[in-house]
Amino acid sequence: MSTTTVTGLQQELQNKIDNKTKPVGSLGRLEEIAARVGVIQQSLQPHISNPHIIVFAGDHGIAATGLVNPYPQAVTAQMVLNFINGGAAINVFCSQHNIQLCVVDAGVIADFDPTHYTGIENVATGKIIHAKMGYGTRNYLQEKAMTNEEVNNSIEKGKEIVSAIHAAGCNCIGFGEMGIGNSSAAALIMSAITKLPIERCVGKGTGTNKKQFITKIETLESVYDMHIKTMAQPLSAIDILASFGGFEIAMMTGAYLEAAKRKMIIVVDGFISTAALLVAQAIDRSILENCFFAHTSDEQGHEGMLYYLQAKPLLNLSMRLGEGTGAALAIPLIQSAVNFLNEMASFESAAVSNKD
Amino acid sequence: MSTTTVTGLQQELQNKIDNKTKPVGSLGRLEEIAARVGVIQQSLQPHISNPHIIVFAGDHGIAATGLVNPYPQAVTAQMVLNFINGGAAINVFCSQHNIQLCVVDAGVIADFDPTHYTGIENVATGKIIHAKMGYGTRNYLQEKAMTNEEVNNSIEKGKEIVSAIHAAGCNCIGFGEMGIGNSSAAALIMSAITKLPIERCVGKGTGTNKKQFITKIETLESVYDMHIKTMAQPLSAIDILASFGGFEIAMMTGAYLEAAKRKMIIVVDGFISTAALLVAQAIDRSILENCFFAHTSDEQGHEGMLYYLQAKPLLNLSMRLGEGTGAALAIPLIQSAVNFLNEMASFESAAVSNKD
Repeated sequence: MSTTTVTGLQQELQNKIDNKTKPVGSLGRLEEIAARVGVIQQSLQPHISNPHIIVFAGDHGIAATGLVNPYPQAVTAQMVLNFINGGAAINVFCSQHNIQLCVVDAGVIADFDPTHYTGIENVATGKIIHAKMGYGTRNYLQEKAMTNEEVNNSIEKGKEIVSAIHAAGCNCIGFGEMGIGNSSAAALIMSAITKLPIERCVGKGTGTNKKQFITKIETLESVYDMHIKTMAQPLSAIDILASFGGFEIAMMTGAYLEAAKRKMIIVVDGFISTAALLVAQAIDRSILENCFFAHTSDEQGHEGMLYYLQAKPLLNLSMRLGEGTGAALAIPLIQSAVNFLNEMASFESAAVSNKD
Repeated sequence: MSTTTVTGLQQELQNKIDNKTKPVGSLGRLEEIAARVGVIQQSLQPHISNPHIIVFAGDHGIAATGLVNPYPQAVTAQMVLNFINGGAAINVFCSQHNIQLCVVDAGVIADFDPTHYTGIENVATGKIIHAKMGYGTRNYLQEKAMTNEEVNNSIEKGKEIVSAIHAAGCNCIGFGEMGIGNSSAAALIMSAITKLPIERCVGKGTGTNKKQFITKIETLESVYDMHIKTMAQPLSAIDILASFGGFEIAMMTGAYLEAAKRKMIIVVDGFISTAALLVAQAIDRSILENCFFAHTSDEQGHEGMLYYLQAKPLLNLSMRLGEGTGAALAIPLIQSAVNFLNEMASFESAAVSNKD
């Protein structure tokens, strides 16, 4: 395909799609997906191989205060163990769809038993990938959540992890996260990048009641005001991540950049994952060419993020769980698009009459 | 479970869902689906077993005129062969998701080679189930498409086929169709049942251009006016089917009724399949308790049908192919709902702290 221009390839893909035994356009968005995957892979026979979801876990200094999160900080580590024991929603959906799940300790406040850990070189062991950049971020009520060095190291680590997974034959990837308090980091990042006011960016997160929600908004407004004064204009992606965190979001930012560089299909999950994408596309806008948006999250700010990115997600099931669960449910739709392109008969091959 | 009232069971299901390791409500519509499937099966451990899609194929007398369809009538039979040869979109999606596909000759104008046919007793052979009620319907420009006897026989045959599939261990079923001209029958049925004017019920069908579309509307308006005068008020489901057809829609009507009677999960596909459901629910409204709506079709009238039924489909991918393709893509989401209910850990079992 190397001598085919993208425009020529796009036309060839469209012809192939239009000659399948179905009315033109009748597979709707699956047709768009098939064509886009073909362009990403520069192929008339694109394929999905060894799809993965990486869940990046990290703790947030703010969470110890209880001002923004109804669940205790300890839940981050507890859920990481739930992931490796197979008990979380993301385990169920990955298992259903033969998606490999990788869990990364990007900066959980607790240490896990050493037997639970593995290195980046063994991404598919079902253990926790040891990529700990710190024991939770600092509390951004008092100081920056991370140093610029921590941000850069986290981004690099995210790139390394995706490189290792790509080397294992994966060409389709989604990112999820676990981190008590990280919907607040995501809201702050969203506000900094989209310029929408904090109250438009803050959602209830996981299980916040009305009073907690008001406290969350007020807390994050004061945090935003405090930090924004100290940051150079125009805001840099690194500064935004350093101010608000977290390790898992920074690592995910690197993961997006590397996945696009390696021409992987990227399936974007919900609010926190899309916050990391906001940062990544601020660094390199072209990565969006590789992104498919899995779903519209029920977390309030997500629609604003999608609007900013002009993204049209595949699913809208009122989910707001994170972990990559939306991505896991959308990957089969992308697979369906690739499959119809490769497996359906053409009018000619099936001896079906086309319209006049 | 026999001593548990539905209300008690619903509460038990909700408790089980709320104790999974996720914030309450965070799996959105999957939680509603899980609870509804539990109620349908009267079980805290519902399951999906041996899911099937039946494609009912039939020809329409009107199609020979070319007034409502850009594709020649011969395409119905050609596509049936495509189904049994594995080349259609529905084959690809069923294969992807381990859904058994059954193809039924409900009234195709052509006879297939005898070696391609099988009886109802062998539903899973991959051959065409021989249930031919006639060689296409009559042309409703001149007379009723079917006799009342043909309608009743078709409904009975649809029930028999679903009974056989149920006996083979299937508890989750979707219905698709193939029949050149059947989007016109569906529009006429929709208008008769919803009382919406024809122009609101008619869509482009598969591949109609603008001029053909206007001809289609005008033709169907005159057909509707001609038949409605001769029908007793209030309109009966049987009369509606007899006037407008077709064999595949009548058979599907029976299939819905039998599937609900056998407490199966019913996954409703697009425009023509929903037209058959309109008829079936006019006969027995309670069948809707078993129905999950797969997708919003891009065929214009489908949204009106969904509004009439107060249905909220799972997917909206701008598809308008029929064949049961929307149902095939939605069944995995219903499976995901059942799986999380059965497989996810509880807060207690995973030692994860719940919120205060």
